[in-house]
Amino acid sequence: MEKTKKTIIVFSGDLDKAMAAFVIANGAAAMGDEVTMFFTFWGLNILRRPEKVKAKKGFLQAMFGAMMPRGAGRLGLSKMNFGGMGAKMMKIVMRQKNVAGLEELMATAREQGIKMIACTMSMDVMGITREELVDGLEYAGVATYLAEADESNVNLFI
Amino acid sequence: MEKTKKTIIVFSGDLDKAMAAFVIANGAAAMGDEVTMFFTFWGLNILRRPEKVKAKKGFLQAMFGAMMPRGAGRLGLSKMNFGGMGAKMMKIVMRQKNVAGLEELMATAREQGIKMIACTMSMDVMGITREELVDGLEYAGVATYLAEADESNVNLFI
Amino acid sequence: MEKTKKTIIVFSGDLDKAMAAFVIANGAAAMGDEVTMFFTFWGLNILRRPEKVKAKKGFLQAMFGAMMPRGAGRLGLSKMNFGGMGAKMMKIVMRQKNVAGLEELMATAREQGIKMIACTMSMDVMGITREELVDGLEYAGVATYLAEADESNVNLFI
Repeated sequence: MEKTKKTIIVFSGDLDKAMAAFVIANGAAAMGDEVTMFFTFWGLNILRRPEKVKAKKGFLQAMFGAMMPRGAGRLGLSKMNFGGMGAKMMKIVMRQKNVAGLEELMATAREQGIKMIACTMSMDVMGITREELVDGLEYAGVATYLAEADESNVNLFI
Repeated sequence: MEKTKKTIIVFSGDLDKAMAAFVIANGAAAMGDEVTMFFTFWGLNILRRPEKVKAKKGFLQAMFGAMMPRGAGRLGLSKMNFGGMGAKMMKIVMRQKNVAGLEELMATAREQGIKMIACTMSMDVMGITREELVDGLEYAGVATYLAEADESNVNLFI
Repeated sequence: MEKTKKTIIVFSGDLDKAMAAFVIANGAAAMGDEVTMFFTFWGLNILRRPEKVKAKKGFLQAMFGAMMPRGAGRLGLSKMNFGGMGAKMMKIVMRQKNVAGLEELMATAREQGIKMIACTMSMDVMGITREELVDGLEYAGVATYLAEADESNVNLFI
């Protein structure tokens, strides 16, 4: 039988790229494919809880953490963000056009059983702890990603 | 028989990334592969007509449209663009070196029968209408992309 | 037998993306896969020697060359770089956490026999000559990349 699994590495933490990743993932899951999303580096910000979480961190890690957006609702655009105005404008247009926003896309991904893995090595580097991330994630490294990719027929880096 | 089809999602609207996408696509087509390029988000700007086109739009969509570059000739670099100077410099060097520019690469892609699909969902979000885009495109959504990707052995996100 | 080769196009010259590329490449090589990395556009900067190298160049090419970082030690982050401060902070955290830095990742890639190809067409466009790049590279164009990708089961664009 043909392989139809899909993997997406979500490296970017930009709203537009995150939306593209989830639209593709949800589309594939809706067509019956198993989908694994592997969140690494800035992509981890998509998975952060919106509230402040106390976590033991070194000074530099705490600084990084404080400067990065907490969760899907606070991401900016990769272009024309203008300090958040661009992202706000795009969200308004999406609501007018009845296009699902990122939080909604993420809820659909969960409902469809898409596997979301947070990259433990980049959590270390970015200083992001498990308590700061949303529920329902798996935690793993590059070997797990590669094993999934070997079983998949479409593998994207976003 | 081995699958040799290729798909490229062109998410970026940067000159350098667009050139990379078309160089890969044209190379594959020259080797006899079927190639599908799926243009989404900022990548749609590559396909815009250079002239102003009247189109019915909401206020925010019109603003987005006015601020984004109209077509291959007006794109900037992803790095070191310096308000367009970087792109101009790169074009001059390319002419000196007899390297094909983006417009030329796009013409070759057409001649080679590369399928170019504009993502209808992101057209809605970015406020880009069909009249604003060049001729010869197909219009479709993520399901069409996924069907093409399932038949392909190389699938890139650029 | 299943194909397990991997290719990675390294288009970006950002420290974070370069690290992601080498972590994936090294992981795959450690699992016994053949890996080809194809460096193009800004990705070529990762391969530059740190010292100044005299090379015959046109004026614009020399300018480009002077403004781009020379080698893995001088790259910036794709986000939150703050004129190099971000990259410095990330390197300090990585040392604290015993995470391998980019130079170390590149040394491992060499030891594991990962094939590194510099894209000759983008060398022309960026004005980068062979003398400016580190030893042990191959030089080729898009046709070579596509031949490798056709034999691989995972192909990423970073």
